[in-house]
Parts: sequence; C-alpha cells; structure tokens
Amino acid sequence: MEEGLAGASMDAVAERAGTSKATIYRWWPAKEVLALEALYQSLSDTDQREADTGSLRGDLEALLLPWVRRLGTRPYGRVIAAFVAEAQTDPVFDERYRAHFVEPRRQHAKAAFARAIARHEIPAGTDVEVALDLLYGPLYHRLLHRHAPLSDRFVADVIDAVLRGLSRPVPQLPPYGLEDVGR
Amino acid sequence: MEEGLAGASMDAVAERAGTSKATIYRWWPAKEVLALEALYQSLSDTDQREADTGSLRGDLEALLLPWVRRLGTRPYGRVIAAFVAEAQTDPVFDERYRAHFVEPRRQHAKAAFARAIARHEIPAGTDVEVALDLLYGPLYHRLLHRHAPLSDRFVADVIDAVLRGLSRPVPQLPPYGLEDVGR
Repeated sequence: MEEGLAGASMDAVAERAGTSKATIYRWWPAKEVLALEALYQSLSDTDQREADTGSLRGDLEALLLPWVRRLGTRPYGRVIAAFVAEAQTDPVFDERYRAHFVEPRRQHAKAAFARAIARHEIPAGTDVEVALDLLYGPLYHRLLHRHAPLSDRFVADVIDAVLRGLSRPVPQLPPYGLEDVGR
Repeated sequence: MEEGLAGASMDAVAERAGTSKATIYRWWPAKEVLALEALYQSLSDTDQREADTGSLRGDLEALLLPWVRRLGTRPYGRVIAAFVAEAQTDPVFDERYRAHFVEPRRQHAKAAFARAIARHEIPAGTDVEVALDLLYGPLYHRLLHRHAPLSDRFVADVIDAVLRGLSRPVPQLPPYGLEDVGR
C-alpha cells in the first residue's frame, strides 16, 4: 500500500518481515498474489460488511460509497486497477482476484436486491445480474479509464439511474416536445 | 489478430513484413503500440462509423451491437482487454489507447445523445457523461471480469435501463405490494 504494486518487491517484503525471500516464496508464488492476499486480509473486516438499511438505495450506498472513496485514495485505487490488469493475463491470479474481490461484493449486492424484492420495493422479476453490472460497471470504468472523477455524486447518479431503470417496464419513449402539436 | 497480444512478437512482424526488426522499432517502440496502431487502422473505416437512425435507441444499438459482437470474437476481445491492462501501467500507451479507442467511441455516442436532446426525445438536462459511463461501463465490465456473457441481450438490457434511467426524474420508490393496505 505504501509503494503500489509496481514499486513493491519480494526483497522489501522479506526485509520488513525479518525473514528470507525463500520463505516468502514458499507461501506466495509472486508479488501480485502476495499483494492480493494481503489486501484481502486487511479489507475483509472493514470494507465488506453488509448493511441492511431498510431500503435498496440505502443498502447500495452503504456498499458502494465507502468502496469508491477508497478507490479514490492512492495507492489503493491503482492497486485494484493493477489487479484487474494482472487478471487479464494470469489465470491463477484471475481466479483468486475474482474469488476475493469480485464475488463477495456481488454477493452482498445480490442480498440487498433480494431484500428489496422481498419488501416489494422492486419487481420480483428484476434481472439482478444485469443490475449488478449496471452498478459496478460504470465504477470500474472510471477507475480503469480515468476519464472522469469517481466522486460521491457519480455513485449517487449511477444508483439513481439503476433504481429508475428497475422500477418500471421498458417505455416506448415518445417525444415530449411541442413540435408535433397541430400537425 | 491471429495470435493475440501475448503471442505476438516483433520478430514475427518483421518476418511477415519482409523487413528488419530495427526498421519496425524505428516506427513503433513496443509490440503493444504496434498492435494498437494496426488495430486502429483496420477498424477506423468499418467499426467506428456513426449511424443516425432517428431514435436514440436505434443509434445506440447501431453503435454498440457491432462492437460488442466483435468483442465476443477471439482474439479481438482479449486484445482489447490486454490494451486496457497495458494502459494501467504505461502512460504513453494509455494516451494512445484512449485517443484511438475510447474517445472516438464516446464522441459518437455523445453526438447520438445530442441528436436525441435536439429531437426532445430525452431531457435537455441529461448528464451525457454519466449516461455514457452507464452504457460503456457494464460492457467493459463483462469484457474484463468475464463473469457473464457479452450477449446481444445484455446490450439491449443495458440500453433499456439507461433509456429508462434518463426519461424521468428520480423517484422516491414506494413499495407497490399490498402489505400496507388496510393498516
């Protein structure tokens, strides 16, 4: 977390831990995997707690806002981006990354949607997988492409759009202007 | 495109082109940059054409469906994923990648939203930047995390959700069940 993934080395880890590099390598095959496991351990009791606030909006804000604020800090956000990059070419890393960082977060969000369906807050037929991608996709998009800030406002806008998107059937959008009046 | 980015080498490119590796390196500093420029040249007149179909839904389908179908083919989809990965650690590559692959696509989508606003199809105050991230984010998300298929149906679902999300003010979602009747 001090140096970012590019600046990390197994030598430095071994030195700080007061042990040999061979010992480190016995447990972790590469610095990427070590970083992933370390970050997962340090996060598991602070970041991935589930909140039952009584509303879907509240639950999603409780899940997404702390995470996005953390993504905005250095080097945490760049480390997660480096994890996504590493996962594109290393299948072993990809599997661990998804098991530790992607799936738990999706499971918590899924539980929030299930509670919202049980409360009749959203339609029972809601496609939760699509809803999850509509929530997480834009956040990862700004993290990885860095074209616009990952702000609290953006999180609220994404949640708003998804809640609106869920809450009624697909409309055939009519023009609402006055151009056609009197034709 | 035959071997994917990991399987490509400057040696193979030089051999196929009937020239020396030194000549190739004179023009392109790394195989990633060469691949990026080659892919950009090969795509520019087939993939990034703008369609004015008369409706926002039609324009977005015309823009996104051919791209997503292409992302589903090997190795094109993995090459784009490798580009995103490379862009996380190489600032020069990142700049070219964004200029060639991210910005033109966003500009085309922006033009489609501008036409929809001019037709009074969507509100004039629509936050187009957010709308673009809501469209592209989920598509990149499935490309990079590979947790679910990048299907035509998914593209339609994303477009539907975004169009619904744009078309009315933020609701305070009421429960629509019958639980509270008679209380």
